[in-house]
Amino acid sequence: MRLYDDPCSGNGYKVRLMLALLGQPYDYVALDIDKAETRTPEFLAKNPNGRIPLLELDDGRVLPESNAILHYLADGSAFLPVDRFARAQVMQWLFFEQYSHEPNIATVRFWLTHGVEMTPWRQEALVQKRAAGYAALAVMEGHLANRRYFVDDAYTIADIALYAYTHVAHEGGFDLAAYPAVRGWLDRVAATPGHVGITRAVG
Amino acid sequence: MRLYDDPCSGNGYKVRLMLALLGQPYDYVALDIDKAETRTPEFLAKNPNGRIPLLELDDGRVLPESNAILHYLADGSAFLPVDRFARAQVMQWLFFEQYSHEPNIATVRFWLTHGVEMTPWRQEALVQKRAAGYAALAVMEGHLANRRYFVDDAYTIADIALYAYTHVAHEGGFDLAAYPAVRGWLDRVAATPGHVGITRAVG
Repeated sequence: MRLYDDPCSGNGYKVRLMLALLGQPYDYVALDIDKAETRTPEFLAKNPNGRIPLLELDDGRVLPESNAILHYLADGSAFLPVDRFARAQVMQWLFFEQYSHEPNIATVRFWLTHGVEMTPWRQEALVQKRAAGYAALAVMEGHLANRRYFVDDAYTIADIALYAYTHVAHEGGFDLAAYPAVRGWLDRVAATPGHVGITRAVG
Repeated sequence: MRLYDDPCSGNGYKVRLMLALLGQPYDYVALDIDKAETRTPEFLAKNPNGRIPLLELDDGRVLPESNAILHYLADGSAFLPVDRFARAQVMQWLFFEQYSHEPNIATVRFWLTHGVEMTPWRQEALVQKRAAGYAALAVMEGHLANRRYFVDDAYTIADIALYAYTHVAHEGGFDLAAYPAVRGWLDRVAATPGHVGITRAVG
């Protein structure tokens, strides 16, 4: 299979981490978001929504949306439970990540690390996203206070999805000092056999 | 089972529509978002993220996140395919809905129908959300140009999730005139046997 990705993307990193944990070899196509390489006619023909990551199977079928790709790759493995309620709880945290976490924590990181001009409008948005991001971290802190992982005491794609931008939240100016349960969970995830970091050699 | 919901919510409507299609009886607990009834200590004990809809099972277990609830309810029915790739495609559209569609189309509808003060900051945000909302509709239009439903020519929870806020997009000032494939799909969804509208008698 082939992964279209930007090496700086946390959403792409979710997929790279999942593929590494599964020991699944893949081709890597690096695209530069800053150069709008995900908005070319060629790429839009593969994903009309113009976003990476995008997984392309050997038969040519394509799948966008990082958390949908995680679901596809994990299906049938221990990273996605089969129990109906546990599976729905994994979904719960995947949607929490895309709605309450990523738009705040990842977006702020992008602005601050990609030289985005901080207009007055964006400065006010930053205040709102800072508050919403910390609120998401507080929800995670409460949940992890007496749990090792997000669902059923096992490492699942819910952990992979939430780890991606939480472990680099400081790059967007978020301070995790007041979130010890989150920090302990980050350490557990990073200590998982087969774990890889967000930076990878592109080839 | 019991549904905690605000009758005005499109996210809650997804669940109401799913329960109606499944013929599943349930208790209904109406909460008023405008009165912060989802931020009381009692409700935060059930969902620390302070959002509706929330599904409570008969054994007391709770599940938040509208699309995770859809997944739970549909699991084992024709509304969620069992094929691995088709299931991942359903996930793709559920995440598209929560990331590229709902934050734009639903948020604008909320602002314009709930008397939210349109500050200068929000007026600029409205311009951005209007453009992003139309971009999401364009992705849907292209996908539906030669398809009856979003995945595998069958009515799934991907359709339910995207129908919820698309069919009331005009309440947020979105004009669907240029999206004939979307309008045809809305008509097909509304004509499904067992379909219910977004307004329900609360009791």
